[in-house]
Amino acid sequence: MRLHSAPKSGNGYKVRLLLGLMGEGVEVIDYNTRGGETHSPGFLGNVNPDGRVPVLELDDGTTLPESGAIMLFFAEGTPYLPGDRVERAQIFRWMFFEQYSLLLYLSRPRLWKMWEVEITEVREAQLAEIFEQGYRALGVMERHLEGREFFVGERPTVADVALYAYPRVCDEGGYELGDYPNVRAWLERVEALPGYVPPPGRA
Amino acid sequence: MRLHSAPKSGNGYKVRLLLGLMGEGVEVIDYNTRGGETHSPGFLGNVNPDGRVPVLELDDGTTLPESGAIMLFFAEGTPYLPGDRVERAQIFRWMFFEQYSLLLYLSRPRLWKMWEVEITEVREAQLAEIFEQGYRALGVMERHLEGREFFVGERPTVADVALYAYPRVCDEGGYELGDYPNVRAWLERVEALPGYVPPPGRA
Repeated sequence: MRLHSAPKSGNGYKVRLLLGLMGEGVEVIDYNTRGGETHSPGFLGNVNPDGRVPVLELDDGTTLPESGAIMLFFAEGTPYLPGDRVERAQIFRWMFFEQYSLLLYLSRPRLWKMWEVEITEVREAQLAEIFEQGYRALGVMERHLEGREFFVGERPTVADVALYAYPRVCDEGGYELGDYPNVRAWLERVEALPGYVPPPGRA
Repeated sequence: MRLHSAPKSGNGYKVRLLLGLMGEGVEVIDYNTRGGETHSPGFLGNVNPDGRVPVLELDDGTTLPESGAIMLFFAEGTPYLPGDRVERAQIFRWMFFEQYSLLLYLSRPRLWKMWEVEITEVREAQLAEIFEQGYRALGVMERHLEGREFFVGERPTVADVALYAYPRVCDEGGYELGDYPNVRAWLERVEALPGYVPPPGRA
């Protein structure tokens, strides 16, 4: 089993964090995404037609893209994905929320800074919308965490792992978490878990 | 059990389509999303802090947002979500792909047309990026469907239901599926399934 990933991929990091917390490991093959390595004909044809990492390659050659799907694959049958039907549904809920309402808005400003993308007038207007949506999503997390230690149930699940990756490094894109004390306390709770793996560049 | 939704919500439609195919029903409460009904204090406090539909309300008052989570909740234990671990992971994979790589790009132009949003220079530039990403995602679907009847395994699953909703109406936003014959044939296969429910406004 091998994980196709990239050193700075937040989605790749989610999988490595989950495996760390579960006390497991996996062989990692890192690509240079900015250099276009994940859009080569070989990668698109054999690893992921969507040109994205992470992708889990099973021993029989089956490829599984999407960090959420990879995490659910590993978490099945462990306390990170409990058996109760309603709890599972709530875990899925937060994982879809992370992909649709949070990730894009938290990752985009950081990516543009990392890649030194020129901030044109159009991008400036986009950034205003992006930050508005990003802070709105962080607000949803902040209110949900009121009186809660973790997102679903009493202990960490794969939902916490999925939600942790981008808020943890969103300051690199210009976000400030000063008004989000519940989110900050929860980030620290995740960091205190045995087997915790720090995000790329924050070791 | 009640489904909080909106008449034109593509994500709400996914849930209604799945229930139709499964031969089940649910009480639906429709909101006027454009009129701000899903951002009222009551909705944000009692139904969904994210201000989005659909939301499933269980008989004990538990609320479950996110169409993907609601569909997985209903599909569990049925042929729409098979028990095999790798097949399940592939179903999750396509559901996350739909939320992150497809939905936003297919829905945005349609929403702007429906709401008669003014297409400023900034939005014009955004639309170019949106269509590029949307066609790219449709291309991923097109290639995957080569030689396949449905997205995972030999019969329809919740992945097909999730992926169907937005491509089916993307022409209303200006997309053309002429170069995507596998996608068009698959849309027709879904429409031929017993219990099929047409999308809003296409009855």
